Amino acid sequence: MPSSTSTSVSSFSHHFYTLLLLSVLLVAFFPGAFHYLSSLPFAYLSAASSPSSTHQPSSDQGPTTTATNTMSWFQKQFSLPPRSRGSYLVTDHVASAVPEIAQYKVGLLNLFVQHTSCALSLNENWDDDVRADMSDALDRIAPEAGPKGQELYRHSAEGADDMPAHIKSALIGASITIPIKDGKLATGTWQGIWYLEFRQVKHTRKVVATIQGEKA
Amino acid sequence: MPSSTSTSVSSFSHHFYTLLLLSVLLVAFFPGAFHYLSSLPFAYLSAASSPSSTHQPSSDQGPTTTATNTMSWFQKQFSLPPRSRGSYLVTDHVASAVPEIAQYKVGLLNLFVQHTSCALSLNENWDDDVRADMSDALDRIAPEAGPKGQELYRHSAEGADDMPAHIKSALIGASITIPIKDGKLATGTWQGIWYLEFRQVKHTRKVVATIQGEKA
Amino acid sequence: MPSSTSTSVSSFSHHFYTLLLLSVLLVAFFPGAFHYLSSLPFAYLSAASSPSSTHQPSSDQGPTTTATNTMSWFQKQFSLPPRSRGSYLVTDHVASAVPEIAQYKVGLLNLFVQHTSCALSLNENWDDDVRADMSDALDRIAPEAGPKGQELYRHSAEGADDMPAHIKSALIGASITIPIKDGKLATGTWQGIWYLEFRQVKHTRKVVATIQGEKA
Repeated sequence: MPSSTSTSVSSFSHHFYTLLLLSVLLVAFFPGAFHYLSSLPFAYLSAASSPSSTHQPSSDQGPTTTATNTMSWFQKQFSLPPRSRGSYLVTDHVASAVPEIAQYKVGLLNLFVQHTSCALSLNENWDDDVRADMSDALDRIAPEAGPKGQELYRHSAEGADDMPAHIKSALIGASITIPIKDGKLATGTWQGIWYLEFRQVKHTRKVVATIQGEKA
Repeated sequence: MPSSTSTSVSSFSHHFYTLLLLSVLLVAFFPGAFHYLSSLPFAYLSAASSPSSTHQPSSDQGPTTTATNTMSWFQKQFSLPPRSRGSYLVTDHVASAVPEIAQYKVGLLNLFVQHTSCALSLNENWDDDVRADMSDALDRIAPEAGPKGQELYRHSAEGADDMPAHIKSALIGASITIPIKDGKLATGTWQGIWYLEFRQVKHTRKVVATIQGEKA
Repeated sequence: MPSSTSTSVSSFSHHFYTLLLLSVLLVAFFPGAFHYLSSLPFAYLSAASSPSSTHQPSSDQGPTTTATNTMSWFQKQFSLPPRSRGSYLVTDHVASAVPEIAQYKVGLLNLFVQHTSCALSLNENWDDDVRADMSDALDRIAPEAGPKGQELYRHSAEGADDMPAHIKSALIGASITIPIKDGKLATGTWQGIWYLEFRQVKHTRKVVATIQGEKA
């Protein structure tokens, strides 16, 4: 009789430990699962109590600190729409090319253009005139020829606009880094992403987008 | 008799496994705890053997490699002191606005100004004249009018200083990234953080500070 | 008899659980081990089926997403070869100073020069003339004196080339951030890393290299 009791205890503990071990394995291999399951009820509660799209972590001044659990990297290459010389607002193009931004609670987006005669920048997102004025101003800063038409450059084999394009590229820069907050780029109200093309002929420019951060 | 022995073995193993499982769960859910507990004696040993504030990882040339254990993100928004046109050293303001820098053994600080008519930069931190000369030089590079007073810009509705401000902002840039080493910004002896305001009227500029790195 | 069966079951479960727990502990403490062991056969399979150096993750357009397992930071300081005024291609120097780039499957390299009268940039990596033209163009943008030789700067105690050097440094920038993909810098075909020295006298410039990313 005692031995049969012992067997059933052993059997109980066998099942108990098997379940416990499975849980531990589940959590050890898929750490996100624990967070997902444990925060699920709160997510629903929070959704129920705040029917609008605003929620607490979006508050402007509150600092965000995060531990290591759901950190991840994302990298992809995309092309900008082919353009000839000018300054172009590409905020929407970037947003649709890198929808993964929405998955990050906090992080940084790096956009890196793989060319040396165009540039990426952040600037005014409203008035087209600002973009036209910018292109003109850069032509004055890095002109194709001197004030009396004299030659300025040794490097002229690729066209009169090539060396000025390299200078403008060095001045504006090939890459921008933008903070991500609650799935959105933390840009100011009037800030947009600019693609500045410095060559006369249309080029298809490739951009490497790298996101590093913590997923929501 | 054998069965009672069996029961006590089972009971022993029951307690043993419970403890073991609790440890596993503790470590699985709080990975930092294991590192903290296991490195605690060494931390005391190291503190005892090196009474001064200098310790090995601070050596200038030695590379620092870190695994994933204590990685974390920090993000916060703060305001710069309101200023009219000029170049300002804000190293101390940043240090007091983002004291969290001190918590990171290795990492990067990204400062991103959410505006398009001012800029952030790194430059000389000693002589005020450098900052005055910089503002003048940028006025020559992106002037409000041509050399004979002629109009240069389409975009003039927001004031004569607005379009030049956008140009200077594109040239200098809206964000800087600074390495963190042993709780301090790894800037050179003469490097300070500059806030360059390009509008005549005082503005309160908002900055998003993002730290990514490994905590000490 | 039943009790002896019970003992042997208990003994079996004892060994079974010990092994299982050891596995769990192994994975909990060294998460990389599981990935390493489980992906080992596939690595060999993949190596066998693709004898050339190209392999799938290198495909240009495919996005790369990574979880947290093998994330790591690397930071080191190195010196650039001493140079007087001019623009220099230092891609190879950086590659040999920071061979750790090869260890990262995906990530970002930040190069930060700890000085305020030189700069780092990305530009054309082929024609020396581009670098000579760049130095000349920056001299026109930030000249040592006005067009009729008049003084331009308050800050002149450190030499006529010092204030122009600070201006050029602000325009070009003290740091660059370059994406890493499959152990290589994801630069374009014609992109190289430039060190621009703006002082006449040779200086030894220190650079802090910070890599953050996921190891292969």
